[in-house]
Amino acid sequence: MTVRALWWDRGALALLDQRALPGRTVVRRLRSVREVADAIRTMAVRGAPAIGVAAAYGMALAARRHEATSRRAAELLGATRPTAVDLFVGIEAVRQAWDAGGDPLLAADRYRERVVEECHRIGTVGAPLLRKARGVLTHCNAGALATVEWGTALAPIRVARERGAKLFVYVDETRPLLQGSRLTAWELQRERIPYAVIADNAAGHYLRSGAIDAVIVGADRIARNGDFANKIGTYEKAVVARENGVPFYVAAPWTTFDRARRDGRAIPVEERAPEEVLELGGARLAPRRSRARNPAFDVTPARYVTAFVTPAAVVRPARLASLLSRKRVGAK
Amino acid sequence: MTVRALWWDRGALALLDQRALPGRTVVRRLRSVREVADAIRTMAVRGAPAIGVAAAYGMALAARRHEATSRRAAELLGATRPTAVDLFVGIEAVRQAWDAGGDPLLAADRYRERVVEECHRIGTVGAPLLRKARGVLTHCNAGALATVEWGTALAPIRVARERGAKLFVYVDETRPLLQGSRLTAWELQRERIPYAVIADNAAGHYLRSGAIDAVIVGADRIARNGDFANKIGTYEKAVVARENGVPFYVAAPWTTFDRARRDGRAIPVEERAPEEVLELGGARLAPRRSRARNPAFDVTPARYVTAFVTPAAVVRPARLASLLSRKRVGAK
Repeated sequence: MTVRALWWDRGALALLDQRALPGRTVVRRLRSVREVADAIRTMAVRGAPAIGVAAAYGMALAARRHEATSRRAAELLGATRPTAVDLFVGIEAVRQAWDAGGDPLLAADRYRERVVEECHRIGTVGAPLLRKARGVLTHCNAGALATVEWGTALAPIRVARERGAKLFVYVDETRPLLQGSRLTAWELQRERIPYAVIADNAAGHYLRSGAIDAVIVGADRIARNGDFANKIGTYEKAVVARENGVPFYVAAPWTTFDRARRDGRAIPVEERAPEEVLELGGARLAPRRSRARNPAFDVTPARYVTAFVTPAAVVRPARLASLLSRKRVGAK
Repeated sequence: MTVRALWWDRGALALLDQRALPGRTVVRRLRSVREVADAIRTMAVRGAPAIGVAAAYGMALAARRHEATSRRAAELLGATRPTAVDLFVGIEAVRQAWDAGGDPLLAADRYRERVVEECHRIGTVGAPLLRKARGVLTHCNAGALATVEWGTALAPIRVARERGAKLFVYVDETRPLLQGSRLTAWELQRERIPYAVIADNAAGHYLRSGAIDAVIVGADRIARNGDFANKIGTYEKAVVARENGVPFYVAAPWTTFDRARRDGRAIPVEERAPEEVLELGGARLAPRRSRARNPAFDVTPARYVTAFVTPAAVVRPARLASLLSRKRVGAK
């Protein structure tokens, strides 16, 4: 029943094409850095930790096939999506090995193992927070599909459930690309964790009614002060959770912490094509010639975060900067 | 270019089938109270003021065709949708004339004229609030389609624009039924008012960035203390608007004010079929056997409302109860 987003398979990066889920299970085998860059840009693979790992293997493919210099390969992969810092961490991890004459594929494997292990620890560290929760809200997909295995936000849910917690998951469908109803629902269903999909609009209703007593999400980039970028809509959920006294947790491996960034003000927010909002599966949702705006992420100030669930500990935002300065972790 | 949601046409209630918009313009002619009840239940006509007027004509059809007693016709129409109080106001307006031996069709015509006139006055009363706004957010459709003509939330936008205001409308798509991207966008496009559709998730991002400097929505039922029910997601927008110091206005004719209700605690919230969340135009959005929850409305406490835009004046929530006790308006 285990879900894996991607794996190395006889000279190629194999990945589940996340655009086809949940209707079809399509495995794509990528054999060049360009194919990997395309898969990241078109969101065949998505989720900050998973695109970091995919990019690491993209670098390894470039090196093995002598497709490009390490610099050119890094540029190609780095230009795909601007918000998730993991992308750049994954690229750099392999570039350093490559430039130092090491084995780029071994470096990519190690980077993947590191991410998987950190996600597993996030599950163990975070599970006690959800021990008594009945209703848990999550936004977007921060599961195995977003992180190779385990997930970030879903890891504590998985471990809490294994330990007997009776939790029920409210899954924001997460417009426009529906990563909640398509991907998170698919993962939860495979593991028989009870859930209901809700329109993003309904989260506030259940937060106010008391049905939800914890919110847990992933992240795409976390600044030193705890401001963080995540899927569009995360900010609204955080504000409404605090308004109702519901704890709001952000789960992430060290690769998502951007030590070079003081706060959230200058985090780049990707704006994607308006068609993602105006069309669905070829069907038109709005009048012809409609305009749309489509920011893929928003930035939530640290004051709305109850705690970060890291691989090492549950960390309050006020303690994050000092922890990051002690640990040599995350993006530099 | 004028949009009209419904009109009386040679012995039948004619209405624009709002399920077919924006792709197709389909006019349905309803000839019995049962057909009107079905049209309300299936949302061929929707929006609190418009379903009140449709129900008034449904009563008139029942009387003219001797289909049912006034009591039975009122029960049939009243069982369609529980949240909008206008539905019951429209039914009662015609029932009183019918029971008193008056002309039910004349009573329905007068009820329609009253709603249209009140919406027009809402436009005039509310336009000065938007005079200096650059970005205005609206949720769902509170336009002519929801109110016969003019609209509630859209009426001040229309009038402000006629008077030369340079406003840009952010249109929440409004999942699950997309009344924003399908209907509000259609109305604004016909009147050449500049707008962009956004995923509901993106409203918070633009409220925080300063792009939106006023929010205006309609309502389905407003209690004496100013708590109000409106389309699911309204509560989240109201909380995030207040968090960012952005004024939040609720525009409604007197028929939406429920004088019998002290506060929002017991307002009935309709839960609709899960398929509205799980499917779109026949396409499946989530895994087979997924569960979904689908509340159609939420209740926003009065403390998040900057002011109500009524046909008579802009009214702060604290002044609402005394105004309602002086005026013989709304539902008793």
